Amino acid sequence: MAKKVTIKDLAKAAGVSVTTVSQILNGKGARFSQATQDRVLALKKELNYVPDFNARNLILHSSKTIGVLVPNIGNPFFSSFARGIQAVCREKEYMPLIFSANHEVELERYYLSRLVERSVDGLIIASASITTTTIDEILKPNAIPYLLFDQNQTDAGDRVQVDDYQGGKLAAEHLLALGHRKISMYLPTNPTDNVLHRLAGFKETLQAAGVAFGEDNVVHTALTKRGGYEGTAAILAQQPTAIFCANDELAIGLYRGLAERGVRVPQDLSVIGFDDIDLDEYVTPALTTIHQPINQLGEEAAHLLFKRMATKGELATQVTRMPVELVVRQSTAAVEAR
Amino acid sequence: MAKKVTIKDLAKAAGVSVTTVSQILNGKGARFSQATQDRVLALKKELNYVPDFNARNLILHSSKTIGVLVPNIGNPFFSSFARGIQAVCREKEYMPLIFSANHEVELERYYLSRLVERSVDGLIIASASITTTTIDEILKPNAIPYLLFDQNQTDAGDRVQVDDYQGGKLAAEHLLALGHRKISMYLPTNPTDNVLHRLAGFKETLQAAGVAFGEDNVVHTALTKRGGYEGTAAILAQQPTAIFCANDELAIGLYRGLAERGVRVPQDLSVIGFDDIDLDEYVTPALTTIHQPINQLGEEAAHLLFKRMATKGELATQVTRMPVELVVRQSTAAVEAR
Repeated sequence: MAKKVTIKDLAKAAGVSVTTVSQILNGKGARFSQATQDRVLALKKELNYVPDFNARNLILHSSKTIGVLVPNIGNPFFSSFARGIQAVCREKEYMPLIFSANHEVELERYYLSRLVERSVDGLIIASASITTTTIDEILKPNAIPYLLFDQNQTDAGDRVQVDDYQGGKLAAEHLLALGHRKISMYLPTNPTDNVLHRLAGFKETLQAAGVAFGEDNVVHTALTKRGGYEGTAAILAQQPTAIFCANDELAIGLYRGLAERGVRVPQDLSVIGFDDIDLDEYVTPALTTIHQPINQLGEEAAHLLFKRMATKGELATQVTRMPVELVVRQSTAAVEAR
Repeated sequence: MAKKVTIKDLAKAAGVSVTTVSQILNGKGARFSQATQDRVLALKKELNYVPDFNARNLILHSSKTIGVLVPNIGNPFFSSFARGIQAVCREKEYMPLIFSANHEVELERYYLSRLVERSVDGLIIASASITTTTIDEILKPNAIPYLLFDQNQTDAGDRVQVDDYQGGKLAAEHLLALGHRKISMYLPTNPTDNVLHRLAGFKETLQAAGVAFGEDNVVHTALTKRGGYEGTAAILAQQPTAIFCANDELAIGLYRGLAERGVRVPQDLSVIGFDDIDLDEYVTPALTTIHQPINQLGEEAAHLLFKRMATKGELATQVTRMPVELVVRQSTAAVEAR
């Protein structure tokens, strides 16, 4: 197998010194003849010489990479989010290194440590289980700029959020307008702050309209399709006419549990999700949901991080909160229609 | 903001020289007192000192990373595949750098070049549009070990495949056994070799059973949910009683097109997919498909690549072909049942 082409190979092929090649490739070749410059550049292309990035890193103390930690890349929400980050990184000529921690705290720490070792220039952490302790232990001592997304409350750091409270409120208003009064909500087992805001907006709007909503109207389950499926019996036992799911994956899992029991959506039961993943238009019936601007959230997260990386510590904490909106599809209907 | 903790900081805190710290951390500290060793190790932990990986890379000519290029991380097939790779990398203490080229040839070349610059130790290329030219231009001159997956035919290199021909055959046999004789197939616009093998197995099995299957029984569309949705009118115009989709995403897109037209699956039309992504159990009706061992494919790809990296050029080309199987769910039914 061939060996990686080095700057020495290139210098030898061009019949010039390594220093000459280095200067020409770094745009400082004006003092050499045009013929020499052209020959070196042509040979660089011909031999496919690729400069050693590790040498450059060591000198510049930058790897031109940002680390991205997501809880589950298998959730289309996070693949869209990552796509937004990827687009901005490409403009800036950075590489995004994306890791899925599969909701495991230990794996999260592992990847964070490896990313720090590799001198990432910054981190976007969209992992729900990261703790203040982990941030204090791993990130702060190494002075790595980071941004939190969709996160537990920690005391510090830039963040990108959506208006989760408003999302819960919109879901409640929609169901109230359709005449629903017996309403349940699907929550993850250990709800993160953003989900608790959804719950608060939902609950307070229902209660303000005189609709009872307490612990008896909530079912906790794993925040996955499987979780939504496995909680079906428990949530149907509450005899709701409508169910608000903390995310779309839960709703899609619930669909399966309902189909197996012959419960029709929306004729027998209205279902509303949260996120607006691309799948929502493909399931039957198409899912009514609260739209998050997923791709833009990724872009904004990357923009704020690059700003932080450029200014180091001199910048006040950046918080961007983006709006959500109700998207009405076929999974919700008026109670009267039953 | 704090500065990254350096070996100098650690040496200063411990009251010893940088050389002493370096030797203790590299397991060569036996000649120092136990108290000194303990103090350095305790301070390493306390200060969260992380060794500079770039320096190590430069010396060892290895970044302990492998690059992974997938066409679309938003397809659950590739997120499962990536999970298999991730698991093996973790055992080997390598970092997998995963990039989604979104089916764009130019983006693929971009990421490949950046990965080579960063001295990845090897590459797994699951991107359908990679060409022999790209491999010859970017990978071979830099002597990067690589493995192809799910790929166009190129003349060289290790690869992991499934028995696509057998998959097509199983799909055909299943539909024939249910009495179908008017059968269509959904194909991507530019089918890759693996998809052409599925087609060959399907077509030859139908023809051997005396069922006509030619260009009039095929519709080409984009290999995405949207493609499956947008091709619905064209494929229904062929008046099939059953449709074999080249992958599950196409089938899920087709479901939407059928639902909008009131065509019931499987009562009016049987649908069979290919891949067995986790979503198949969640759509209604649950999708009959050809199962690929997706997670194991990722693991095997990583194992072969590590073997190649360990032995350099002295190993014959490695090809692993893994079996597929039919998974019957609710989307296929006997023609007689109509």
